[in-house]
Amino acid sequence: VSGPIDSLQNTHVAAARALLTRKGRTAASSFLVEGPHALGEALAAPGLEVGEVFITDATADREVGLLRAAVAAAVPLRIVTDRVLASLGDTVTPQGVVAVVTMPSIALEAAFAAAPKLAVVLDQVADPGNAGTVIRTADAAGANVVVTTRGSVDVWSGKCVRSSAGSIFHVPIVTGVTAAAALEQARTAGCMALATAADGDADLDDLVDDGSLAAPTVWVFGSEAHGVGTESRAAADHVVRLPVYGRAESLNLAAAAAICLYASARAQRR
Amino acid sequence: VSGPIDSLQNTHVAAARALLTRKGRTAASSFLVEGPHALGEALAAPGLEVGEVFITDATADREVGLLRAAVAAAVPLRIVTDRVLASLGDTVTPQGVVAVVTMPSIALEAAFAAAPKLAVVLDQVADPGNAGTVIRTADAAGANVVVTTRGSVDVWSGKCVRSSAGSIFHVPIVTGVTAAAALEQARTAGCMALATAADGDADLDDLVDDGSLAAPTVWVFGSEAHGVGTESRAAADHVVRLPVYGRAESLNLAAAAAICLYASARAQRR
Repeated sequence: VSGPIDSLQNTHVAAARALLTRKGRTAASSFLVEGPHALGEALAAPGLEVGEVFITDATADREVGLLRAAVAAAVPLRIVTDRVLASLGDTVTPQGVVAVVTMPSIALEAAFAAAPKLAVVLDQVADPGNAGTVIRTADAAGANVVVTTRGSVDVWSGKCVRSSAGSIFHVPIVTGVTAAAALEQARTAGCMALATAADGDADLDDLVDDGSLAAPTVWVFGSEAHGVGTESRAAADHVVRLPVYGRAESLNLAAAAAICLYASARAQRR
Repeated sequence: VSGPIDSLQNTHVAAARALLTRKGRTAASSFLVEGPHALGEALAAPGLEVGEVFITDATADREVGLLRAAVAAAVPLRIVTDRVLASLGDTVTPQGVVAVVTMPSIALEAAFAAAPKLAVVLDQVADPGNAGTVIRTADAAGANVVVTTRGSVDVWSGKCVRSSAGSIFHVPIVTGVTAAAALEQARTAGCMALATAADGDADLDDLVDDGSLAAPTVWVFGSEAHGVGTESRAAADHVVRLPVYGRAESLNLAAAAAICLYASARAQRR
């Protein structure tokens, strides 16, 4: 019986390590998921394919339920040393297990086919932590679709997957489309389109007060540096500004998204 | 005439470099501020003392207004090479200027003396990005005080200062007190105390509906891993839960804080 894999040159290990870069992920249409909790979510997600699992002996001993679920799904298990496992993650504290998961491929039309009540478009968002946090908040607010436009950060990066805290496996994610295409599809599906900008024509509080937010809505959030793009602004029913009562110049993207999405969620449930 | 400082052993440079660690900041009661925008905010902040400015030749040529403001405030300017400037920052893209700023020392009693309408306590919050983002959101929502409890992340770290986007210079920050002391002071000043937890006894939407949020309020947000501490829970008027409509287990701390603080800001202005 051979021991745990200890070679970074092992073909499986090397192929998985290639997924630490966006180029490698795109080429293989796969990404990495770290930790028992996230792997459990990936195994439970309908339509998501877990390709293989790298796990240390110690973690395998501890995570019996997870191993059973992986075996039940016929996922190959590879026992590796701590050193190999650490090489597959980009965190300081690896959690003993890393899995290779096939990127879901969801077409824009399919994502909007069921007439979502709440959808989110991330337009050229650059920060993976912000993108993951917005996906998590969108999930919490009951959103049915998240779209990231061409030119946005890779949502399948380790940082974004971690920041989503499992929500990347709960909400259908469409990537690599233009903002114009996303908004056209959303409006065809019956959504009001709202973009956010500091110089918006509508105040969020006014939309809450006049009942507008009860309608099915797609929210567009723009990049941290440049805000929403011109095509999103042009296609939106309203460009919405959030009130700033103090001396801050603006809100962080994830904070602004939380306020907007929860305003919609509340209005839609009244 | 000597050229720009190029030695990392220069006494001013070495003293400033010591401020990259929490230990060094605490010992010197000073912290570092990076970039022209943040330095401008620091120079403009009442009661804040900028000790010295390290700047590259190129940045000095470009930022004439900033230099004038520094000279007007009698702040020593030290021209340094790119290499020295890079050694004073913890970002990949240094912005040409770093300043040493004395930590403001604000007593709990003083911070609450003016009966704030909206205050925030960060109870054992560990992530500097989250702490800075909450400070930024608190500023935007019009909060008058932010307190971080003993055991919380150092708000004067580079990451936290950057994440606050200047708001750390807008809102009085009290650090290093217990949650119990902060809540007692806030309640003495007339604030309702609200802590947040997934198993809270009150739903945020209900507090919005029944008008409770119009009262002066101190919000307590707990650590990312463990939530609010037992002493905060015990001292709070309500432990508030945020509704989760989808499958997310919880919200990110900064997202949750944004929703709560904006709910208060809106209710207080109706």
